[in-house]
Amino acid sequence: IRSKLPHIGTTIFTVMTNRARELGAINLAQGFPDYDAPARLKDLLAYHVAAGHNQYAPMIGVAELREQIALKLGTSYGRFPNLDSEITVTLGATEAIFSAVVSLVHPGEEVILFDPSYDSYAPAVISAGGRPIHIPLDPPKFQIDWDRVRAAITPRTRLVMINTPHNPVTTVIPRKELDILAEILRPTDALVISDEVYEHMIYDGARHASIVEHPELYERGVAVFSFGKTMHATGWRVGYAVAPPDITREIRRVHQFNTFSIAHPLQLAIADFLKEVPEHNAGLSAFYQAKRDRFLELLRDSSFSWTPAAGSYFQLLDFSAITDQMDVEFADRVLREAGVASIPVSPFYTAPPKLNVLRFCFAKNDSTLEEAAARLCKL
Amino acid sequence: IRSKLPHIGTTIFTVMTNRARELGAINLAQGFPDYDAPARLKDLLAYHVAAGHNQYAPMIGVAELREQIALKLGTSYGRFPNLDSEITVTLGATEAIFSAVVSLVHPGEEVILFDPSYDSYAPAVISAGGRPIHIPLDPPKFQIDWDRVRAAITPRTRLVMINTPHNPVTTVIPRKELDILAEILRPTDALVISDEVYEHMIYDGARHASIVEHPELYERGVAVFSFGKTMHATGWRVGYAVAPPDITREIRRVHQFNTFSIAHPLQLAIADFLKEVPEHNAGLSAFYQAKRDRFLELLRDSSFSWTPAAGSYFQLLDFSAITDQMDVEFADRVLREAGVASIPVSPFYTAPPKLNVLRFCFAKNDSTLEEAAARLCKL
Ligand SMILES: CSCCC(=O)C(=O)O
Ligand SMILES: CSCCC(=O)C(=O)O
Repeated sequence: IRSKLPHIGTTIFTVMTNRARELGAINLAQGFPDYDAPARLKDLLAYHVAAGHNQYAPMIGVAELREQIALKLGTSYGRFPNLDSEITVTLGATEAIFSAVVSLVHPGEEVILFDPSYDSYAPAVISAGGRPIHIPLDPPKFQIDWDRVRAAITPRTRLVMINTPHNPVTTVIPRKELDILAEILRPTDALVISDEVYEHMIYDGARHASIVEHPELYERGVAVFSFGKTMHATGWRVGYAVAPPDITREIRRVHQFNTFSIAHPLQLAIADFLKEVPEHNAGLSAFYQAKRDRFLELLRDSSFSWTPAAGSYFQLLDFSAITDQMDVEFADRVLREAGVASIPVSPFYTAPPKLNVLRFCFAKNDSTLEEAAARLCKL
Repeated sequence: IRSKLPHIGTTIFTVMTNRARELGAINLAQGFPDYDAPARLKDLLAYHVAAGHNQYAPMIGVAELREQIALKLGTSYGRFPNLDSEITVTLGATEAIFSAVVSLVHPGEEVILFDPSYDSYAPAVISAGGRPIHIPLDPPKFQIDWDRVRAAITPRTRLVMINTPHNPVTTVIPRKELDILAEILRPTDALVISDEVYEHMIYDGARHASIVEHPELYERGVAVFSFGKTMHATGWRVGYAVAPPDITREIRRVHQFNTFSIAHPLQLAIADFLKEVPEHNAGLSAFYQAKRDRFLELLRDSSFSWTPAAGSYFQLLDFSAITDQMDVEFADRVLREAGVASIPVSPFYTAPPKLNVLRFCFAKNDSTLEEAAARLCKL
């Protein structure tokens, strides 16, 4: 079999989760909470399953859920997307990104990605026949150098993929940088995919800048969101893509033949929950900031150093005071010696620089954070 | 926006279901039951959700479900695929087909499809950058002309896609024709995707011939199955792909970045159900044959004629005694005048011949079949 993705191994998330399980380690690697989805959400699912909503949902998602999505985006970002022509429910943000990339990128076209980038982006581009153009974000700040973006634009540039708050490096793109991106793209036909799955996990009083509230970018944009993250239910696999009608039409052309539609009772449960608990999302940043702060407080006496995460439910810890090992090797040592699984950042680069940070997920109960921090303090 | 799939409209299933809803018609168009999933299956889902299995399932599917799949294939077809290297749980058969095609077909390669073909096949091929080569199945028998297949093979042929029992035309491929396909492919590197989602709906004492039990085809094959169909739960969106390790490795390279993993509690509920009710699948053919026969009995006095479906939960009805309208027009008339939604077959062809059949789904309660048949008898 001649492989189409010959350089792609098993995703680092699966590798680290499997190793954590084998070694009985605390898994702060793959991003998921060790507490459960809200009890009311689970009850609503049981209700809709019992009530018999077990056949195909509509291809674009159930109307009740698309209504709640429109309401939420309107409340958060001042734009109420059209239910029928701008919102598509997908198998998590993952499928939203994949269907969008495959529908929008033609063979031979270029897609600008920032390295480190979430590990599904480049394979999606290659699957579409496109060519990923990697622009590195340099440690320690991992900021976008917009001059490099300007220089990377060619007549073949079809798409720029951004991610804010950023996974794995937890930075956020401020509103004024969205303006720079808009200005760079003004003379081009390039589109934008904005992965905003951590929109409601943003700290220290900052505000998430979404392309949904940026008229010029939204016109050429796809914003991607996840209920797995906001509902503490990563295993339900429900997300959505929001884009203007002409772009949504293209995304659905692939979505309808890729996944067709998303689990019906899960959609109804999430829709009802959002209706009953409209304040749910607004509380997430405070909830997660407390976890971040607790985790860092517990690490006060460790040899790690850090800049507190600006967003996402991950924290980068700098290990340069401990060792000058490569990050992948040190992650392995932390796993074996301390029994804590983390994620190294270099697998998210095409040509990794020397990196001295690991990514830890703090979406965990206090007791888990306490035990993990106690182990990390011994390094 | 320059479209990548410019000739692709909204799938006929969505179009007809929406029209049926608008007109308050009986929906025998899109294939789904109007009875519910088994009560025990629903209880098991509520149990696993309450028990807190709401975070990411493993990328390849939960072990408990892969075990049940292996057991089932072993019992039905005498081959027990390896849990870890040959079985991948997907978002229904739809994603299995899409991820398989996108991972296996390189840009410029050819894929042999039979027309009529399920409407996701050609868009998947185009999304992969491949070229669909359409071989028509001629009415009224819709049999595969293997000489045409032989003639269509070129050095660029990457894949042949078969579907047995066939949707929409309900034919089955007998074992000896699988031998012919194997012989045709012997001198080539071409692979086979075999869509077998109706494997347990096969009538009049016939036996389903799976590529899983055909060593020579399985070696180059991907077999695709659906729990939506067998569990009366089309809205749960759980299916699977079975293929030898080297092919499975490629499929997972796309699957992990397309959908990553499938809803966790749904997988656990299906696994437990299959363990508790191992006889479930064996009863399906008799259950659906009774429905097929009841539906046809009710149509005895109608002006339609038919050959009873050999497999699937669809029945083709020949309307040539009623009109010489095109099938699309007559489907519209049946919808408006009789209030029954059906599926015309010509949308599944690239170059449709003159067709005088419509497809009706008989996965319905007796009362639905009675009312629908009474209306159809008036035409
Ligand atoms: C799809 S598994 C990875 C989960 C995640 O988003 C992360 O850990 O970064
Ligand atoms: C995915 S909607 C179509 C359902 C189906 O398989 C059919 O009606 O043929």
